[in-house]
Amino acid sequence: MASKQEAKEVLKRFWIETPSWAYGNSGTRFKVFAQPGVPRDPFEKIADAAQVHKFTGAAPSVAMHIPWDKTDDYAKLAKHAKELGVRLGTVNSNTFQDDDYKYGSVCHFDKKIRQKAVDHLFECIEIMNITGALDLKLWFADGTNYPGQDDLAGRQDRLFESLQKVYARLSDNQRMLLEYKFFEPAFYSTDVPDWGTSYVHCTELGPKASVCVDTGHHAPGTNIEYIVAFLLRKKRLGAFDFNSRFYADDDLIVGAADPFQLFRIMHEVNQGGGFDKGTTVSYVLDQCHNIEPKIPAQIRSITNVQEAVAKALIVDADALKKAQLAGDVLGANDVLMDAYNTDVRDLLGELRSEQGLATDPKLAYAKSGYAEKIAAERVGGAQAGWGA
Amino acid sequence: MASKQEAKEVLKRFWIETPSWAYGNSGTRFKVFAQPGVPRDPFEKIADAAQVHKFTGAAPSVAMHIPWDKTDDYAKLAKHAKELGVRLGTVNSNTFQDDDYKYGSVCHFDKKIRQKAVDHLFECIEIMNITGALDLKLWFADGTNYPGQDDLAGRQDRLFESLQKVYARLSDNQRMLLEYKFFEPAFYSTDVPDWGTSYVHCTELGPKASVCVDTGHHAPGTNIEYIVAFLLRKKRLGAFDFNSRFYADDDLIVGAADPFQLFRIMHEVNQGGGFDKGTTVSYVLDQCHNIEPKIPAQIRSITNVQEAVAKALIVDADALKKAQLAGDVLGANDVLMDAYNTDVRDLLGELRSEQGLATDPKLAYAKSGYAEKIAAERVGGAQAGWGA
Amino acid sequence: MASKQEAKEVLKRFWIETPSWAYGNSGTRFKVFAQPGVPRDPFEKIADAAQVHKFTGAAPSVAMHIPWDKTDDYAKLAKHAKELGVRLGTVNSNTFQDDDYKYGSVCHFDKKIRQKAVDHLFECIEIMNITGALDLKLWFADGTNYPGQDDLAGRQDRLFESLQKVYARLSDNQRMLLEYKFFEPAFYSTDVPDWGTSYVHCTELGPKASVCVDTGHHAPGTNIEYIVAFLLRKKRLGAFDFNSRFYADDDLIVGAADPFQLFRIMHEVNQGGGFDKGTTVSYVLDQCHNIEPKIPAQIRSITNVQEAVAKALIVDADALKKAQLAGDVLGANDVLMDAYNTDVRDLLGELRSEQGLATDPKLAYAKSGYAEKIAAERVGGAQAGWGA
Amino acid sequence: MASKQEAKEVLKRFWIETPSWAYGNSGTRFKVFAQPGVPRDPFEKIADAAQVHKFTGAAPSVAMHIPWDKTDDYAKLAKHAKELGVRLGTVNSNTFQDDDYKYGSVCHFDKKIRQKAVDHLFECIEIMNITGALDLKLWFADGTNYPGQDDLAGRQDRLFESLQKVYARLSDNQRMLLEYKFFEPAFYSTDVPDWGTSYVHCTELGPKASVCVDTGHHAPGTNIEYIVAFLLRKKRLGAFDFNSRFYADDDLIVGAADPFQLFRIMHEVNQGGGFDKGTTVSYVLDQCHNIEPKIPAQIRSITNVQEAVAKALIVDADALKKAQLAGDVLGANDVLMDAYNTDVRDLLGELRSEQGLATDPKLAYAKSGYAEKIAAERVGGAQAGWGA
Repeated sequence: MASKQEAKEVLKRFWIETPSWAYGNSGTRFKVFAQPGVPRDPFEKIADAAQVHKFTGAAPSVAMHIPWDKTDDYAKLAKHAKELGVRLGTVNSNTFQDDDYKYGSVCHFDKKIRQKAVDHLFECIEIMNITGALDLKLWFADGTNYPGQDDLAGRQDRLFESLQKVYARLSDNQRMLLEYKFFEPAFYSTDVPDWGTSYVHCTELGPKASVCVDTGHHAPGTNIEYIVAFLLRKKRLGAFDFNSRFYADDDLIVGAADPFQLFRIMHEVNQGGGFDKGTTVSYVLDQCHNIEPKIPAQIRSITNVQEAVAKALIVDADALKKAQLAGDVLGANDVLMDAYNTDVRDLLGELRSEQGLATDPKLAYAKSGYAEKIAAERVGGAQAGWGA
Repeated sequence: MASKQEAKEVLKRFWIETPSWAYGNSGTRFKVFAQPGVPRDPFEKIADAAQVHKFTGAAPSVAMHIPWDKTDDYAKLAKHAKELGVRLGTVNSNTFQDDDYKYGSVCHFDKKIRQKAVDHLFECIEIMNITGALDLKLWFADGTNYPGQDDLAGRQDRLFESLQKVYARLSDNQRMLLEYKFFEPAFYSTDVPDWGTSYVHCTELGPKASVCVDTGHHAPGTNIEYIVAFLLRKKRLGAFDFNSRFYADDDLIVGAADPFQLFRIMHEVNQGGGFDKGTTVSYVLDQCHNIEPKIPAQIRSITNVQEAVAKALIVDADALKKAQLAGDVLGANDVLMDAYNTDVRDLLGELRSEQGLATDPKLAYAKSGYAEKIAAERVGGAQAGWGA
Repeated sequence: MASKQEAKEVLKRFWIETPSWAYGNSGTRFKVFAQPGVPRDPFEKIADAAQVHKFTGAAPSVAMHIPWDKTDDYAKLAKHAKELGVRLGTVNSNTFQDDDYKYGSVCHFDKKIRQKAVDHLFECIEIMNITGALDLKLWFADGTNYPGQDDLAGRQDRLFESLQKVYARLSDNQRMLLEYKFFEPAFYSTDVPDWGTSYVHCTELGPKASVCVDTGHHAPGTNIEYIVAFLLRKKRLGAFDFNSRFYADDDLIVGAADPFQLFRIMHEVNQGGGFDKGTTVSYVLDQCHNIEPKIPAQIRSITNVQEAVAKALIVDADALKKAQLAGDVLGANDVLMDAYNTDVRDLLGELRSEQGLATDPKLAYAKSGYAEKIAAERVGGAQAGWGA
Repeated sequence: MASKQEAKEVLKRFWIETPSWAYGNSGTRFKVFAQPGVPRDPFEKIADAAQVHKFTGAAPSVAMHIPWDKTDDYAKLAKHAKELGVRLGTVNSNTFQDDDYKYGSVCHFDKKIRQKAVDHLFECIEIMNITGALDLKLWFADGTNYPGQDDLAGRQDRLFESLQKVYARLSDNQRMLLEYKFFEPAFYSTDVPDWGTSYVHCTELGPKASVCVDTGHHAPGTNIEYIVAFLLRKKRLGAFDFNSRFYADDDLIVGAADPFQLFRIMHEVNQGGGFDKGTTVSYVLDQCHNIEPKIPAQIRSITNVQEAVAKALIVDADALKKAQLAGDVLGANDVLMDAYNTDVRDLLGELRSEQGLATDPKLAYAKSGYAEKIAAERVGGAQAGWGA
């Protein structure tokens, strides 16, 4: 068990990346509800992300999404971020919103479309080279809707061939993170549907490729923490995309649907060394705040993750191991539950005080007047969203 | 067992309603891919629906969606339909695409929003009064995304109160069909999540209210045909919304994901008298042809349903009952499977010949040149879709 | 919000029934692992149940299962219970372990088998008349394994006919609690698969019939607390069968798999008046302690439920309502989460002290020496289990 | 497309292994219903299996389960099989029915238990050496029921270490087939829960280890044919364990729950060369005939698989490829569905006639009098089942 002080030490260096697109509008296929004050360009998104970092002290990096964050001067954007106390992080590609990608991108049966997708990924690497980002995150909407629509094995061949080209373009310190997803937007087959597929491709590509675990991308009932433990054991857990779900890829606030699951995941991360100094695991949010305000939702997400991490850190590891080796099922479970049932909000309040922050980030943000300010100022122009 | 001839008699009177929105563009939250030739107004949608009827002889009615099919002269639209050999059918309401419905419509905590929704439903009834449509189909996107967001029981009270107002407005020969859905677009709670909820409200409202079973709106593993059998037994199965799914509400072509399930459903419909003359069950398609061409997809849907119905009709009912009462598990299953494994496409080809139709509707449509014609003619203007 | 003191008042009168079969051996179809000290007859089960009450002060009643708890003198068993400080509670029927029930019991196609099952239920009522138990809990394993095996609607008719006979036999103060289950042991159709089926039969039977919600008997993703809220609103929630699950009907310790879900359920119970004085809702455990020791597992179950109830009781109801009516999604969720995140173990420790109990029931039991005593004494004889 | 004649050629050499345990009693945790005439020892099981081969001509091999088929003279058993026209096939291990395996076997925290399990696997290899069986099938019930119960990553280490020992004991022509399962009997974590885990261990072990796909062992909604296609592409699909399911691991007759899924799987097998001469894929049944008669159920299983294979073989591969490469979604799906909708029972009847068999195996068996014979003769003794 980390002492309370040790837990705080880990939490001081633990940080989470927030996604630029969480600050824009999002919705379901039925409706996107616009919100007042939503950013109209990448610069305003960065400004909002900086607020989240300002009040939590734990969100210094912002994930980019190309083309949603396309700009003609990434160096300027990076400088803007730096001035606001944050930095540009992971570059997320988008090969699903162009009409050419109707039947897929890197797995498409047409070589020209595959090359177009690969070229887009090259472009993302170029942007990384400018912003200094080290991670290229790949999520592909590729798949099919009807049995027979395409050749499932053939699509894997094309996928691997495309990935090889992209992998070859990475610098030595850059990484490729391959995300998997059970379904949606494809409804019969998905080309990277599970961790196994991602893992096999990554290991065949080389050491710079790792798996990205999006906590909302699994079949019902999947034991996600097992996957996390397995990937850490094999040193192929590259990143998390955090969010939560009751049903499908709901993209709710992380920890909102099943806080105990989040804790169990963090426990495995802790067991596997994922909070160690120099960890290669990235912690990123990927959410849709369809009806709740964006910045407060991001702040809540950060604190939810912090609380789960804190609880994982205070698990009495010695007592746990002892009970496990004694076959004491209830005793071992009890050690874990003792940590989970502990209210760690005071501990996190202390941590924030020691960092010069307000103990309650959501309250501090609410009082700051920023929400009112952006609602008043950001009038006119097109609000950012998922639009192509 | 219906003889082949008897089966054809039933199939001659069996018809399916196609939805106006299936002819417009649709997609996922990630992307809507536009298709050439897509209708730009309700009149063009009706024209396309008429093609489906022309080649199948089994789709004489078109479901409307308000406001997507809003027009200033419904009588004119009805006349247009009649001239093309079809009629305007079920009116589907929409209380999810207005900004006011962010937290719900008929279940909203704000009385004014509830009244706005109810007023929209009144408007739908007015349209029915003009077009002669008898069915009002209610699907509510109402629900919540986060635990605590609203009062679950209170929302039921508001739902029932709203429904009562609408029910009171129905004419004697009009019906209210209350659809349920497991989830989406709400991700924590949905206000009409299951057949039980719909059924209880319907029975408390009165005899003009019945349950609508959308085949894509259930939890994984749900035995839909059981629900169908139960509702038929209680005389509260009002309508089907047909589509198919591998995962969630995928809205694929009916019978595409699990043709055996569709057959089992049709077997229960047959057992429960749902194909009898004067049946009160409506058979409607509700699908999204995101990547496949619309009219051919509707034609395929019609033929898929017809094949399932034909197979259900040729089940040897006497042999089935005999095996069931003997506890002959395999024997009874075998009787059912014998019908399912029969290739009924020739039977349906004969039926169509007898009706003066081409035996293969999809081929006949493909040769008709209609697809090329609308692609060439429908240039300019805004393609129809789900947009508010 | 109940004050801390008010919460304790409610908790003082809140009690949970433990099931006699939880003290015997249980397992999966693959293996039943025997445990030392397991009871060999109903008297020893009652003795174990009395230990759970002794240390928790919250488990004064023991659910019986007939024929597993068959004895030739129920009055003697009741007296034995009373002497040990507990009482005999709900009588659970068993119509699934006789060879005659291979194709069902109350839904069987053979009238003689149905009558045999009904006669068994009459016998259960007779036992209730002797022991003074007021609740008859009905769970039927009835269903089919293969499509076509039996007539789904016909089985509903037989079910209702059987239930009517049993209902007619109830005294005025006795209740029938009809449990539903998604699947298992039947694998194609289950005759009471969902709350809707149970509810419809109960309302048609009369006021003495109510729905029993077993928390492990739902489809993946089902919002159980919604069902609870709905049933409370309609005054048809008769009882809970508590346990928890990751996958199917795992029958794990309640609160072990998803403590947040248990809290959300308890919040709806609280909202719906289920903790009020004179509540008609029964709270019962129904679990299988396949690999963990039985009595400690029951104690843990009791404390898990108590913790969830305590958290539900300290929800700030006024603040919640206020946030809900303001459309403050995050604020309302925050009120709920504030209660959930609170560590209530001290509160429950205080409660126990005030009741003259040790603050930590599991520790107190462990120190009592009872486990060692029964392991030493209960040698020879056949250990109790699920065996017919 | 294979011509009808080519399809028959493939089907002539296509064979399926039946499992010795399918002839014994099985059930759920609630009840095992005994059936008349059930075998009492391995010799009688082989005799029953020989009947399935006699009438189908496609089941020449019988999978063994140790210790359920333990005998003191395996050579004699092999001779007995040969005399009846069949052979002893895959050896299935059992490390879940000994009291020592309460907390696992090859993953157990106690080295002694792990060694005991490994020794059992050595014993299985010894039996293979005697019977000439080439495949060792490994399914482990290992897992945990409660979070924290054991170290998830540590269990993987122990698993791999145990597997290495076993792998080292294989002869050059022997194989290890590692089966995965989503859940049951473990309810929190399972040590080989998915194809990814099995695949990674197999590739790290060496070329003699391959994945076994049990069609009932996946999360709801899993696209099994994708996994099949992936494994064939990587040459690591070792075997199928066939059965079908509506919910969990229901172990129903293959093709009974979702015949279309079975066809899609067979289509991928065909695409991936799994029906080629010299294929290394084994096709095995693994089912529980809880309420239906055993031998007829096995015969039905064989014919169900044959029908699915026949339909896969008559898919017009050229037309399919052409439609796929044209982005003709409906056209490609139509090619597949055309084969699926074809009634292949006559084709299989012809095949059997050409093989000197009755066209309808189930009818021929029913008329043979064998069922009556074994029911009369096999009186006394203990019926075979899953019992340790």
